[in-house]
Amino acid sequence: MYSTKAYSAASATSPLAPTQIPRRDPTAHDVQIEILFCGICHSDLHAARGEWGRTVYPIVPGHEIVGRVAEVGSAVTRYKPGDLAAVGCIVDSDRTCPSCMEGLEQFCPNQIIVFGSPDKHLGGVTYGGYSDSIVVDERYVLRIPSNLDPASAAPLLCAGITTYSPLRHWGIEKGKKVGVVGLGGLGHMGVKFARAFGAHVVVFTTSRGKTEDALRLGADEVVVSRDASEMQKHAGSLDYILDTVSADHDVNAFLNLLRRDGNMTLVGAPAKPLSVAAFGLIMGRRSLSGSNIGGIAETQEMIDFCAANNIAADVESIPIQKVNEAYERLLKSDVKYRFSIDMASLRSE
Amino acid sequence: MYSTKAYSAASATSPLAPTQIPRRDPTAHDVQIEILFCGICHSDLHAARGEWGRTVYPIVPGHEIVGRVAEVGSAVTRYKPGDLAAVGCIVDSDRTCPSCMEGLEQFCPNQIIVFGSPDKHLGGVTYGGYSDSIVVDERYVLRIPSNLDPASAAPLLCAGITTYSPLRHWGIEKGKKVGVVGLGGLGHMGVKFARAFGAHVVVFTTSRGKTEDALRLGADEVVVSRDASEMQKHAGSLDYILDTVSADHDVNAFLNLLRRDGNMTLVGAPAKPLSVAAFGLIMGRRSLSGSNIGGIAETQEMIDFCAANNIAADVESIPIQKVNEAYERLLKSDVKYRFSIDMASLRSE
Repeated sequence: MYSTKAYSAASATSPLAPTQIPRRDPTAHDVQIEILFCGICHSDLHAARGEWGRTVYPIVPGHEIVGRVAEVGSAVTRYKPGDLAAVGCIVDSDRTCPSCMEGLEQFCPNQIIVFGSPDKHLGGVTYGGYSDSIVVDERYVLRIPSNLDPASAAPLLCAGITTYSPLRHWGIEKGKKVGVVGLGGLGHMGVKFARAFGAHVVVFTTSRGKTEDALRLGADEVVVSRDASEMQKHAGSLDYILDTVSADHDVNAFLNLLRRDGNMTLVGAPAKPLSVAAFGLIMGRRSLSGSNIGGIAETQEMIDFCAANNIAADVESIPIQKVNEAYERLLKSDVKYRFSIDMASLRSE
Repeated sequence: MYSTKAYSAASATSPLAPTQIPRRDPTAHDVQIEILFCGICHSDLHAARGEWGRTVYPIVPGHEIVGRVAEVGSAVTRYKPGDLAAVGCIVDSDRTCPSCMEGLEQFCPNQIIVFGSPDKHLGGVTYGGYSDSIVVDERYVLRIPSNLDPASAAPLLCAGITTYSPLRHWGIEKGKKVGVVGLGGLGHMGVKFARAFGAHVVVFTTSRGKTEDALRLGADEVVVSRDASEMQKHAGSLDYILDTVSADHDVNAFLNLLRRDGNMTLVGAPAKPLSVAAFGLIMGRRSLSGSNIGGIAETQEMIDFCAANNIAADVESIPIQKVNEAYERLLKSDVKYRFSIDMASLRSE
C-alpha cells in the first residue's frame, strides 16, 4: 500500500479538496498508472453531491482516466512502463457471469466501479481518477494509441463509449437518419460518431446559439427543440435518436419524430421518472431503450476507431485547483464540451 | 346504398341504442357480410364515451367482426356468398405507402378504421360492427376456416392480432421466458399464443383469484404483482413482457424483471402518460415498446394459426340488448374473457 495525492469531497455539501488516499501496491496482474488527465463527467458531480442517494464519503470522483504506465505486476503481458493507458468506469467484475463472458462487463451484477465500489484489496471503497495514480488489473486497462492526445482522449472513457456503444448496437450506418438530443459532453461525441458511421445527423438543442458549433462537429441539420414547427418537419422521419440529456425533458416530442420501428436510446439519466405517452410507442411500433457505457473490448474498439478516424473530445484543460469552479460551470453547460483535468497541477501542489 | 340495423351512441353520455345506418351497395371489389358475432373491446367503450377525445357522434362501435358473405362485387375473387369471413379494425388504407407495401397497413398514415374514420363512399364517418351487415373491400376481409366457432373467433380480430403480432415480432419461441401482464381480453389471448409458441409463460395479475384460470389458459406460473417478494423472484429473468393493461399502472416494477436486452411491449394504452425510470432501461439495455394490432396478411396468418392449433377466445355470448350492461361489467373486469355479441338478437328485434 502506498499513499497518493487526490481531491475528495467529504460530504454532499463539501467542495472537493486536496487529500491523500491509499492505493494498493501492484499485484501480479496489476498495472500502476500515473494519471495525466481525467475528464469531468456529470455523473462525477451527481455522485459527489449525493444526488443518486448512495454515495460513501469521502469520495474521489473521476472515471475518464488517461495516464502513463509506471509499473506492472509480474504476470502483466499487455502493458509495460511508459505505455499510454486508460481506465474507465469499470475496474473489476466477476468475469464468470453471462455478461462478462460476452464482454459486456457493464452489465455484470458484481462489477466494481472505479469509485465508490467496495475495495476488496484495501477495504473501504474504491477511489477514482482525480488523483496522482491508480492501480488496476490489466484486464480492465485500455491501450491509448500514441496519435491520440491524452487530454482529449480522456473523455472517450465515458462520454465516448457511452455514445459509441448504442450507436453500434442499434446498427447506425450510412443511409440512417439519426437524431442526437443535447449537445454537451455526451452529445458532441454522439454527433462525431454518428457522422463517422455515415449517418445523416440531426442535432436537437434548446439553444439556437449552438447551431454553428453543431454543424462544425458534424451535424447535417440542427433543430431548436423548443420550436414546434421546426420539430414537426422531422415527424416520423428519424431511424434512431440518441438522447443524451440528463435534465428533465419531454421525451414524447422526440419519440414522435421516429419512423416506424425506430428506437430512441437514453444515455442521460434524469433523476425524475420520464413521462411517456403509450400512444407514441404504439403508433409506429417504436421503442425507448437505455444504454450503459460499454464493455472493455468495445471500449478498446472505440478508442482504436477514434485513433484511426482522428476523433477525440473537444476539451477545456484545467488545473485540478479549478475543479469546484468547473462543477459550477458544468451545471450551466458552460464548457465546450468536456473539462479535462491536467493532473500535473496536482503533482506540483 | 341500403339501410341496416345497428346500435349507436348519440353522445359520450348516451347509452347505445337501436338505430338504422346506411351502408354502400357493394362495388366491384366489395364483399357484403351479414354479421354473426362482434366482440366487445375496451376501445369500443373508450371511443363510445369520447375518452380518446376525438369521437364523431353518432358512433357505431365494433371491430371484431365475424359473419357470412351475403354478396360479392363483380371483381371479387377470394370470397363467395356463404363463406365465413371477418373484418377487423382496418377497412382501407392508401395501399401505396411503405407500410402498406410491407403489409403493415396498421401503420399506414391514411388508414380507414372500421368505425369513426371518414367514409369516402357515403360521406360522414364509417360505422362499425354492432350492426346487421357491413360492406368492405375484399383486400381487408379475412377468411375464417370452418373449424373455428364464429362467436369465439370474433375477438381474434383485435384481441388476437394485438397480442399475436408483438409476440411474433419479438421472436417469442421455445426457450424464452415471457411475462403477460393483465389477464383480460388481450391478456388471455397473449397467454394462449405465448404458450403455443413454446415459451415459458408467467402471468402477472393483481388478483390472486385468477391463478387457477391463468394456469388453465396456459400459464406456467402466476405472480400476484402487488406482492413485492413474488415479483422479486423473477427480477432480471424475463426475456420479454407483453403488457396488456390499459389502466394506470407501474411499468417500472415490470421493466426490472427483464433480462439484459429484454423488451416490454405495451398493447394497452393508459390514458395518462406512464412514469418510466430511465435507470431501469439503462441498467440492462432494456427497451419499452408499443405495438398496434397487425397488418391484414398477419391477421390472416394468426387466424390460420388459431384454426390449426385449436385456439380461440374464451367468450361470453350476449344479445345486443345487453350491450350497455356488458360495458359496465367490462369496467369491472367481470367477463371471462371477452363479450361476443350474437347479432341474431339484432335481426330479431
